[in-house]
Amino acid sequence: MIQVAVMGYGTVGSGVVEVIEKNKEEINKKSGEEINIKYILDLRDFPGDPFEDKIVHDVEKILNDPEIKIICETMGGLKPAYDFTKRALLSGKSVCTSNKELVAAHGPELINIAHDNKCNYLFEASVGGGIPIIRPLNYSLTAEKIDAITGILNGTTNYILSKMEKEGADFEDVLKEAQEKGYAERNPEADVEGYDACRKIAILSSLMCGKNVKYEDIYTEGITKITATDFVYAHACGRTIKLLAQSKEVDGRFYAMVAPCMISTSNPLYMVNDVFNAVCVHGNMLGDSMYYGRGAGKLPTASAVVSDVVDCARHIGKVIMCFWDSEDVALTGIDEASRRFFVRVPLEQESKALQVFESVSVIEANVPGEFGFITDVMTEKEFNRKAEEVGIISRIRIE
Amino acid sequence: MIQVAVMGYGTVGSGVVEVIEKNKEEINKKSGEEINIKYILDLRDFPGDPFEDKIVHDVEKILNDPEIKIICETMGGLKPAYDFTKRALLSGKSVCTSNKELVAAHGPELINIAHDNKCNYLFEASVGGGIPIIRPLNYSLTAEKIDAITGILNGTTNYILSKMEKEGADFEDVLKEAQEKGYAERNPEADVEGYDACRKIAILSSLMCGKNVKYEDIYTEGITKITATDFVYAHACGRTIKLLAQSKEVDGRFYAMVAPCMISTSNPLYMVNDVFNAVCVHGNMLGDSMYYGRGAGKLPTASAVVSDVVDCARHIGKVIMCFWDSEDVALTGIDEASRRFFVRVPLEQESKALQVFESVSVIEANVPGEFGFITDVMTEKEFNRKAEEVGIISRIRIE
Repeated sequence: MIQVAVMGYGTVGSGVVEVIEKNKEEINKKSGEEINIKYILDLRDFPGDPFEDKIVHDVEKILNDPEIKIICETMGGLKPAYDFTKRALLSGKSVCTSNKELVAAHGPELINIAHDNKCNYLFEASVGGGIPIIRPLNYSLTAEKIDAITGILNGTTNYILSKMEKEGADFEDVLKEAQEKGYAERNPEADVEGYDACRKIAILSSLMCGKNVKYEDIYTEGITKITATDFVYAHACGRTIKLLAQSKEVDGRFYAMVAPCMISTSNPLYMVNDVFNAVCVHGNMLGDSMYYGRGAGKLPTASAVVSDVVDCARHIGKVIMCFWDSEDVALTGIDEASRRFFVRVPLEQESKALQVFESVSVIEANVPGEFGFITDVMTEKEFNRKAEEVGIISRIRIE
Repeated sequence: MIQVAVMGYGTVGSGVVEVIEKNKEEINKKSGEEINIKYILDLRDFPGDPFEDKIVHDVEKILNDPEIKIICETMGGLKPAYDFTKRALLSGKSVCTSNKELVAAHGPELINIAHDNKCNYLFEASVGGGIPIIRPLNYSLTAEKIDAITGILNGTTNYILSKMEKEGADFEDVLKEAQEKGYAERNPEADVEGYDACRKIAILSSLMCGKNVKYEDIYTEGITKITATDFVYAHACGRTIKLLAQSKEVDGRFYAMVAPCMISTSNPLYMVNDVFNAVCVHGNMLGDSMYYGRGAGKLPTASAVVSDVVDCARHIGKVIMCFWDSEDVALTGIDEASRRFFVRVPLEQESKALQVFESVSVIEANVPGEFGFITDVMTEKEFNRKAEEVGIISRIRIE
């Protein structure tokens, strides 16, 4: 029997307990041993909860119990999760986490500590909720040189954009509705400003490079400026707008970005709607592969945490390979990145825009008082210079 | 250094050599040791080939060389691959294969022999080409009770159906063109009759159940009877037609089938076009997840074989868990399966059809001389009885 502790009995933590309980038979079989939850750490009491007797308030009880081999860290945030995780790993207990903030901030350090202590720090649930993506990168695409990862990594923003598209509604209205339904937080900044997706692409980028991509270095732009009119243009040119988190290597230079982008119907991410997430991985032999599913939610996320528990159970005392060195990757600034741009300008600037941007594809969208077009490929720097010269209304990157 | 042999220097085998050569750095790093190809078995000589000096004609040279730890079996077919694989595993050499025929026919026996001899029989490349699907089922979705798998598992038929849809062309014309382009074999039976997809869903179904699903027991229907007119109806009701390979467990009964089905735009498989493959997996916690990519082709398939080589290299002397018992699963006959059906009847049978099928959704497709509709949910047996009573032109299952 393998004794497990769950730290944090919130949404994901209670989901972990539920998954281990409901799928006991499958999980024990796949683990090769019985998995038993011995403790649940939380500051609160849970009178009447079926697992009430497992609740402990003192982390020392878990950290000092030599029987505990695996800990599920489902607290979130850096404090005290970082400290607890570090101490657990130092004492040879494996930790499985859904905490993307902690993984993005201290991933390589914690992985190293784990390996030095013959245990594992696994984080399948930190990106893409229940979609297997960390393990496919580490275990499956091992014959590939991966040179690009593009994902829809935040369910809240994808829900908002899908709804804006379907209903022709504006951002603020859909956000309010999403908050009422519980799909968006009361303080929605982490989602709508792209910070959540930024942590997640930092993790995926690090696994792609095998080195550390600091999330603070990633250019991040949210969806708050996207309007119903932008979707009118998107439709008129057979595209939609998605918040993409991207990372790519071109000629030895690494680029990473989170930003709303226009994508065409031929992009496999086009059909990823509502709260679904998906990650496209490009390898030099395989080309594109895509991983799609529920990127958030109690049970999908918990399922990913428990899949890590099974992996740890199969590897007690053994290190599971993970290539994520602490050496920081120097990202190339977004100014140097080249692409096309969708641009809206006031009607009176039409001839100026045509003159400055030279070759453009005009979008016939019949939006009164303005003119919309797609530029040729150019660097962000060049685009910004031209956009300033013309005086544009807004722009969205084309992917 | 880990010595590897490749058996069969055809399309996939030469791809394996190419992948190992081109991505040497990544592969050696991920394997934890240098991977070296020592022998390539083929009946032919390859004068001028850069690996000419590794070619051997006698399998004994490989089987009797204690240095060889891993063999890539890329010969295909049952003979002599079955015998060679068995002997290799009996001598403790791991085997990585792309041979779906052999895996579908003898999977559990070969896995058992491997485990008894502390080596591994891995077959990621046997389903979905380069798409990681076997490993996600075995390693990632370990916290799930998987109750349904639905896939587009054959690139040739998906290419043909996509082309028929796009061009309004008939099956025979598109097949001929696909053959000219090399997308379909000169003898296309294995693809167009669904036999290839049947082997693949047998493998996935076995992994879903943990027991053996015999491919011979799976109801298999190809795409040869699908016409341009069927796509006219599909479009008129917002659907398309795909060759689906399905497996599901309902109340402890297992169903499996390969057949063309009509699917709606909301199905994630709807957007899987051309030679792409995809597999949808339904788990009781995660809901649907999907794995998408190139399901065939030299390098994608080879990449999957080499990912198995890396996995074997990481586990020399150790058994990688795989749950596929030799006990056969008793599949429930297709007659008992319930679903809706799309039906075409001659115009003169309209009132008879409406009377016999009672509640139907009529499809307004303006096809002269006939009448198309979708039935309510009923068993296949009930449908067949009613269809015979009415005298229908054709039917396609709705998914």
